[in-house]
Amino acid sequence: MDIQKVVAELKEDKGGRIILMVADGLGGLPLQPGGPTELEAAKTPNLDRLASRGVCGLMTPIKPGITPGSGPGHLGLFGYDPLKYVIGRGVLEATGIGFAVGPDDIAIRCNFCTLDGEGRIIDRRAGRIPTEESAALVQKLKAIRIPGVEVFVEPVKEHRFVVVFRAPGLGANVADTDPQQVGVPPLDPQAHDEPSQRTAQIARQFITEARKIIGQHPKANGLTMRGFSKRPDLPSYREAYGLKAAAIAVYPMYKGLASLVGMDLLGQPSTLDEEIDVLEKAWKETDYDFFFVHFKYTDSRGEDGDFDAKVKMIEQFDSVIPRVEALRPDVLIVTGDHSTPAKLKSHSWHPVPTLLVADTCRPDGATEFSERACLHGGLGHFEAMYLMPLALAHAGRLAKFGA
Amino acid sequence: MDIQKVVAELKEDKGGRIILMVADGLGGLPLQPGGPTELEAAKTPNLDRLASRGVCGLMTPIKPGITPGSGPGHLGLFGYDPLKYVIGRGVLEATGIGFAVGPDDIAIRCNFCTLDGEGRIIDRRAGRIPTEESAALVQKLKAIRIPGVEVFVEPVKEHRFVVVFRAPGLGANVADTDPQQVGVPPLDPQAHDEPSQRTAQIARQFITEARKIIGQHPKANGLTMRGFSKRPDLPSYREAYGLKAAAIAVYPMYKGLASLVGMDLLGQPSTLDEEIDVLEKAWKETDYDFFFVHFKYTDSRGEDGDFDAKVKMIEQFDSVIPRVEALRPDVLIVTGDHSTPAKLKSHSWHPVPTLLVADTCRPDGATEFSERACLHGGLGHFEAMYLMPLALAHAGRLAKFGA
Repeated sequence: MDIQKVVAELKEDKGGRIILMVADGLGGLPLQPGGPTELEAAKTPNLDRLASRGVCGLMTPIKPGITPGSGPGHLGLFGYDPLKYVIGRGVLEATGIGFAVGPDDIAIRCNFCTLDGEGRIIDRRAGRIPTEESAALVQKLKAIRIPGVEVFVEPVKEHRFVVVFRAPGLGANVADTDPQQVGVPPLDPQAHDEPSQRTAQIARQFITEARKIIGQHPKANGLTMRGFSKRPDLPSYREAYGLKAAAIAVYPMYKGLASLVGMDLLGQPSTLDEEIDVLEKAWKETDYDFFFVHFKYTDSRGEDGDFDAKVKMIEQFDSVIPRVEALRPDVLIVTGDHSTPAKLKSHSWHPVPTLLVADTCRPDGATEFSERACLHGGLGHFEAMYLMPLALAHAGRLAKFGA
Repeated sequence: MDIQKVVAELKEDKGGRIILMVADGLGGLPLQPGGPTELEAAKTPNLDRLASRGVCGLMTPIKPGITPGSGPGHLGLFGYDPLKYVIGRGVLEATGIGFAVGPDDIAIRCNFCTLDGEGRIIDRRAGRIPTEESAALVQKLKAIRIPGVEVFVEPVKEHRFVVVFRAPGLGANVADTDPQQVGVPPLDPQAHDEPSQRTAQIARQFITEARKIIGQHPKANGLTMRGFSKRPDLPSYREAYGLKAAAIAVYPMYKGLASLVGMDLLGQPSTLDEEIDVLEKAWKETDYDFFFVHFKYTDSRGEDGDFDAKVKMIEQFDSVIPRVEALRPDVLIVTGDHSTPAKLKSHSWHPVPTLLVADTCRPDGATEFSERACLHGGLGHFEAMYLMPLALAHAGRLAKFGA
């Protein structure tokens, strides 16, 4: 029996309200031996106060040594075993542009490419054509009609776009058409099981129709398809935890990930302050049990390799904490979906500093929120998929296991 | 391969003797921020001395956030994965009154209920009739004979009693007959697989015979059955660990749990001092390798929400430690099956302070036995099912894994 099944059986439809504050890519590394991490360098009087009141720990997003992408990182954070539930590339790409992938949808990442007179690929990315030019082509592709299936075509960035086929019973087991090399034509979409035969046929029709529309474009006269995928069959937050859950995020990717687990999306905030405005209003005016608030820029500045800028983003994140504390949530959690050390300019596998504040927590003597303090925290070292059970337990929302 | 299989392969039928001292519900919480837990408030010079000699840690009974009942709590402590081995309600109830559930037994929790003239339930608990009155009815039900099956009927408390059917090959997959509402008759026992058809039929016969006997009782003129279950197929301590194991406990529930894993029950102690008397005598006069000593009242006072009384119980527990130490066990472990913070008046998910003393342990600098000291202990944070492998290892009872 896995932990999520146990939790689904023990969940109670009553108890405290939970706020999960996620600073994306929060964990860091010292630039110099003996130096502070970004979080340790930042002045975070509010997070330090929370650490004193609560219990800290280090959270491993997937397994030790494994660096998560945003998809698995958030799945783990949301309590879904990221090794069990895989979000396909097509679905992730669609989710990332805010497309609500439904249960009957096959989502596909597509690239415009350049074909020669013989139909062989000469540029797999169509010269990375500008986003506006690509979007205009996508606009034309929206005209494609295939009987018995709804077709969606959405621009992403440069040569990338997303196609979604919506019809009951379609399989996603179709191989990529991108041959990953030039000098050969795109591959024919090949199905690897019975329910995917129709998907492959639809894809073939789509490609044929698309070629008629874009065939004369000097660069983007062809296309390849990758990552045929269906939305993973995730139990919703309601099913898994008995929670009526809401997400507050600026970026479509995180809104999309939250909606995959059945969270409602609140507001249209474009800054952290606006996110907290939305939170305050919803806290008072709605009966959501659970709020996920996502802050992007700690990760962005880490990816830039800009240590000081990431420190500033952490300080900005710290500055809104009093507004969140003032709501007096029964459980307040602060963490990240993974580490993004400026030193590495990328996501990393390092465990993520995490704190949990609740009247029911066992404080651990930590007096600051930092990697060092979390190392000795009462939550110990734990895998992300246990964060939600811990949140529910501290909120009084889990019954006893066995008598 | 799970840890218990590995251990079963590596176990050696020689090595040191182990004493496992369990203070039920040992772990606690501060009443006030910054305050001590019950264990920290208690004066425990003897446990503190053990902590200095040994190695400490925090033990998670099941998984982070999961609060165990007594059944799974002890299974975990005894080294059995409590998510794999589930003790059914009927078996737990029978075990709780000291009934030794055998391998051919189906144990069932029963309630007396009140039926109206049409056979519909009007009180699911028969007005919670007094235990003596209920026991007298149970005494009459013992007269029921069903061909080919041994029938046991035992009183529990108020309207509750236990029925056990003993015959080879009976299945336990029979639905509850309690409709969980009034105004409708009890449900017919329905089997959900082939081996359970006969069980359902036996249950039906039992109910018919019982109705003849109790039908004229003003309140308890009917009965419902719940939690049909078989004893879980647990490897015994001998099979799992190569240990000849004994249990010393006051309460039937813990004796029952110990006997489910093949421990012999020693003595009839009714106080902690008497338990230690039994331990001292058996230590000298028997060749048991392993002793489980259970102390109940730390949990009881926690459940009462009486912080000070729980502190006193911990101090009482501490006071017998010198007698245990004087036996010079090769491995001495002190822990709980779960936490029962007086603040919560219930079992909880918080990890349990644990200490292990052996000549082979690596001391960790702890100088007191407390949640705070255990947080930094050498055993780290670990799941309960690893306690027995650690005990065996420190007792020199586990061979090397691989060459």
